[in-house]
Amino acid sequence: MGKIIVGVIGPGEGAPEAATAAAFELGRLIAGEGWVLLTGGRSAGVMEAASRGARAGGGLTVGILPTADAAGASEFVDIAVVTGMGQARNNINALSSRLLFACGMGAGTASEIALAFKAHKRVILLGTDAASEKFFQSLGQGDAFTADDPSAAIELAKNLLARS
Amino acid sequence: MGKIIVGVIGPGEGAPEAATAAAFELGRLIAGEGWVLLTGGRSAGVMEAASRGARAGGGLTVGILPTADAAGASEFVDIAVVTGMGQARNNINALSSRLLFACGMGAGTASEIALAFKAHKRVILLGTDAASEKFFQSLGQGDAFTADDPSAAIELAKNLLARS
Amino acid sequence: MGKIIVGVIGPGEGAPEAATAAAFELGRLIAGEGWVLLTGGRSAGVMEAASRGARAGGGLTVGILPTADAAGASEFVDIAVVTGMGQARNNINALSSRLLFACGMGAGTASEIALAFKAHKRVILLGTDAASEKFFQSLGQGDAFTADDPSAAIELAKNLLARS
Amino acid sequence: MGKIIVGVIGPGEGAPEAATAAAFELGRLIAGEGWVLLTGGRSAGVMEAASRGARAGGGLTVGILPTADAAGASEFVDIAVVTGMGQARNNINALSSRLLFACGMGAGTASEIALAFKAHKRVILLGTDAASEKFFQSLGQGDAFTADDPSAAIELAKNLLARS
Repeated sequence: MGKIIVGVIGPGEGAPEAATAAAFELGRLIAGEGWVLLTGGRSAGVMEAASRGARAGGGLTVGILPTADAAGASEFVDIAVVTGMGQARNNINALSSRLLFACGMGAGTASEIALAFKAHKRVILLGTDAASEKFFQSLGQGDAFTADDPSAAIELAKNLLARS
Repeated sequence: MGKIIVGVIGPGEGAPEAATAAAFELGRLIAGEGWVLLTGGRSAGVMEAASRGARAGGGLTVGILPTADAAGASEFVDIAVVTGMGQARNNINALSSRLLFACGMGAGTASEIALAFKAHKRVILLGTDAASEKFFQSLGQGDAFTADDPSAAIELAKNLLARS
Repeated sequence: MGKIIVGVIGPGEGAPEAATAAAFELGRLIAGEGWVLLTGGRSAGVMEAASRGARAGGGLTVGILPTADAAGASEFVDIAVVTGMGQARNNINALSSRLLFACGMGAGTASEIALAFKAHKRVILLGTDAASEKFFQSLGQGDAFTADDPSAAIELAKNLLARS
Repeated sequence: MGKIIVGVIGPGEGAPEAATAAAFELGRLIAGEGWVLLTGGRSAGVMEAASRGARAGGGLTVGILPTADAAGASEFVDIAVVTGMGQARNNINALSSRLLFACGMGAGTASEIALAFKAHKRVILLGTDAASEKFFQSLGQGDAFTADDPSAAIELAKNLLARS
């Protein structure tokens, strides 16, 4: 059996500090659960913060890079998967994760959440604005969840994984 | 110079009749402008309706199929591009279209709109519910537009293409 | 029913003149048969020559571009499909073509021939060196063919398509 | 810095026993070097054997699956990357590996070797028939190597990685 992989997604450049702080803490807690962290792999924003957190927690980090080489990978990514397929790699993030945590919002993040729902994966939203949350709750048809902070998100994830 | 390609996106199975009716009319009008229609290619919902409309209008239709063969292609698709890459093909729809029209909403459609914004493409929403419209207006940062009906959408598209 | 799409593949930059001359003639003859030409779409080598030939013959040309925009597309490509996925798009070329013609040889071309065989597509080799031909005849397990010139290749293709 | 990832590629179903035996031993030795093993991830042939070997050697295994879920993954794969993109994932195998070892031959394997050369990656061929070896030596333009057995292949790989 493979390891349990969970994704943390969110904006790269320009990610708000609340999102990167949550991502760091999520990464740390994910490592503590013995799960493998998957991100978009780049050295920016939520991807970098989550990977840094997981490394700090002694965990293993996978980065699914949009680029055709590993030059832009976060230094906190252990396993750099180089796809060379741009944003089409967002579908790999969705398919490869048991469930996903979304910190913050942006076009790339929104596409990943939607692709996750398309693949019937659950997504836990953190710090999402009200309009986004309303939209994704409707879109997710039962696969969208929200959490107030990283600890609550991890508890929710444990319950969801235990039931699946 | 290549032909002008515009995309029509929307739900497949279970698409509401309002969405398929709008898609058919959009396809017809797109053909009338001499543009090439691009869809997700399958024999279902908005994809099928738009392709049927464009064929009725004497136009050319391209279908970007998620499957690994052309068996599920709409009979109204002239050029079946077989990707075998599932929903990752949504990014090709976004990248290959000068602009996109979205009829109705669903997880696949939402991912395509978000991927379009990520690629700085304009998307014209038709018949979108208020919560979705609000979400995408915020996400699109100036690249999201709405239209009341297919005729208005085509006029808007002509203006947008003339400016780009 | 969609149009019959056939692929012409071969090196881009640095393609030998024999390969581009054969590709031009193949493009012209493909248009004469009423088939749609598919290539890798770039403004280089065999892709450009085949597209130019098909355009000269009054045919329709599809280009499956590796890049994330259409800037490098051949001016002889009518339908530019923008994949943004680099060489992974070679699999789309294989899957979307009823059969393929290969002019010349290189790493990209070899990958496309192999991917075509993997998808059980027939490939007609033109002007291939003896070592390459021997390799692909073995690899293709009955799906590899050779032709002495473009006219013979088209006749062979017609026979193969009539049987499939 | 990410871990050093090397790929082992070769046929799935129907792989000759010499190829799977070499793949198992390569996997074991790769683990011994502290490298991460990357394969196509499926529970078949060379992929399975290499993953089993790396697991036996205490190493970490990554599988880049062509399917849209992890159902067909080898039980010896630790990190299952689910691409849902069929053989287009072969390009990810090439791009993500520092270098690749090829055991045996087939259409999928040939495409991966060619894609690796296209990305300027080195490939070490083991147990390849003479016609294939001649073809790839020519195609690889200095990036194709051969080794008589897994131990020699690993020594060669160490030298190549030290130089790059």
